[in-house]
Amino acid sequence: MNELAIIEKLRELAERGPHITLGIGDDCAIYRPRRGEDLLFKIDPMIENVHFRREQPPAIIGQRALARNLSDIAAMGGEPDFCLVSLAIPRELGEKWVWGFYRGLLPLSRSTGTALAGGHLACAEMIYCDVVVGGHVPRGKALLRSRARVGDSVYVSGRLGKPWDRRITPRLALGKALRGKASSCIDLSDGLSLDLYRLCLASGVAADIDHVPVMRGATLERALNGGEDYELLFTVPPGKKAPLGTTHIGKIIKGEPGRVFFRGQVLPPRGYDHFTSS
Amino acid sequence: MNELAIIEKLRELAERGPHITLGIGDDCAIYRPRRGEDLLFKIDPMIENVHFRREQPPAIIGQRALARNLSDIAAMGGEPDFCLVSLAIPRELGEKWVWGFYRGLLPLSRSTGTALAGGHLACAEMIYCDVVVGGHVPRGKALLRSRARVGDSVYVSGRLGKPWDRRITPRLALGKALRGKASSCIDLSDGLSLDLYRLCLASGVAADIDHVPVMRGATLERALNGGEDYELLFTVPPGKKAPLGTTHIGKIIKGEPGRVFFRGQVLPPRGYDHFTSS
Repeated sequence: MNELAIIEKLRELAERGPHITLGIGDDCAIYRPRRGEDLLFKIDPMIENVHFRREQPPAIIGQRALARNLSDIAAMGGEPDFCLVSLAIPRELGEKWVWGFYRGLLPLSRSTGTALAGGHLACAEMIYCDVVVGGHVPRGKALLRSRARVGDSVYVSGRLGKPWDRRITPRLALGKALRGKASSCIDLSDGLSLDLYRLCLASGVAADIDHVPVMRGATLERALNGGEDYELLFTVPPGKKAPLGTTHIGKIIKGEPGRVFFRGQVLPPRGYDHFTSS
Repeated sequence: MNELAIIEKLRELAERGPHITLGIGDDCAIYRPRRGEDLLFKIDPMIENVHFRREQPPAIIGQRALARNLSDIAAMGGEPDFCLVSLAIPRELGEKWVWGFYRGLLPLSRSTGTALAGGHLACAEMIYCDVVVGGHVPRGKALLRSRARVGDSVYVSGRLGKPWDRRITPRLALGKALRGKASSCIDLSDGLSLDLYRLCLASGVAADIDHVPVMRGATLERALNGGEDYELLFTVPPGKKAPLGTTHIGKIIKGEPGRVFFRGQVLPPRGYDHFTSS
């Protein structure tokens, strides 16, 4: 197992983006921005025994490591350009595990135009990975979580309560379609109750929801409080139409900032908080 | 210990950069690029039992986590704009450790204009941290490791063989001064012998060095092969002058790409490789 040889091979395999003028192989990656755009950046970790178990397929772990960040780019209405991947694994897992991980990550990188522009590979006692994604959005057009207003309708994409062990489909096309339509947007990474709380808190409003699209086989409890759906939760002002295939689940109302009601009852933010949940 | 409360506090403390139009608190950070610039990105981890021990002061760990990446920005002739910090720590270390870490990181962030624009905080079984730095350089002016040419002189900043347990001073002013002067540049993160090998390999040349400025108290062996000096190693073409205070250590010569000679003998690349060293 040789770090330099693996990185050399990754350099050959890596998707190259039109705006990455220098990719893997120097002290930094170089990105040449277009005019009139804002750039978006997100970092998110995948940690053994927190986000996955060592026995799980490395390709699923690699796919999710990138997809989670792409979901955040989608939530801002952005389009991804590149990623940097910092991966540490126990020596005994060896090169085979590394390639399994990248067998999950690289196809998603290619299909979404997210160039693998750099990163790091190290040995550690446990598996740990951080992925950063950089993307762009027309200047001033990013969707924020802080712009929901009283009277807006609340929507969600897909069905909630998904099982963990699957590939994630980041909602990039939907995010782009929401530019100029949605007043606010957030991705569902920690559960509807916590993420809607965050959106309402950031916007200084409350929400009243009465309908949640539950995944077949999932419970309502899981759809409300389970994390990792990676769907988009967004608000649409009166007079604007939400894209087809999204579900109207409630309204933004006046009230204590962050307060969420579900069928008339207070819905506490019970989703995943790494420091308070076990 | 509460993730949301810590992040809220970090948001108050964070250095804000002029180009970060949205910092901590949404799905992504937003960066508004200036015209006529290339952007630089680097990610680098700090891993317990690989880069440090748990007993070491968290402020040193936090300072180094950022400084290592700033050193890479310096090596490209760039200026830093922002950072994202993904930190995972064992629950029992608690909030006190987190603030110790940031007591090391934040002053360097402020003194170098590197806005803390986002990140992640999680619990894990071991301490793990990835820092990403974004920076800029005038378009086309980044210093690469692949542009050394036969006949160039090889220089290094500072003295080599530094002990580990100290703060790092990234050579940002020197990196900027080298724009338009140096033909190639790399930072010394894994030891002179390995990093000079990398520079020569990328440039398709060999090097012949005969003098190395050794830190007081360090051995020549450590100056040649010890990692983590975070000085700049660069080449200057004939007719250009290296900045004051840097040391001329040898010449770029024709030869097998990557080959380095020290006082007439082959110097093998023995610096730190995470997969081959123990």
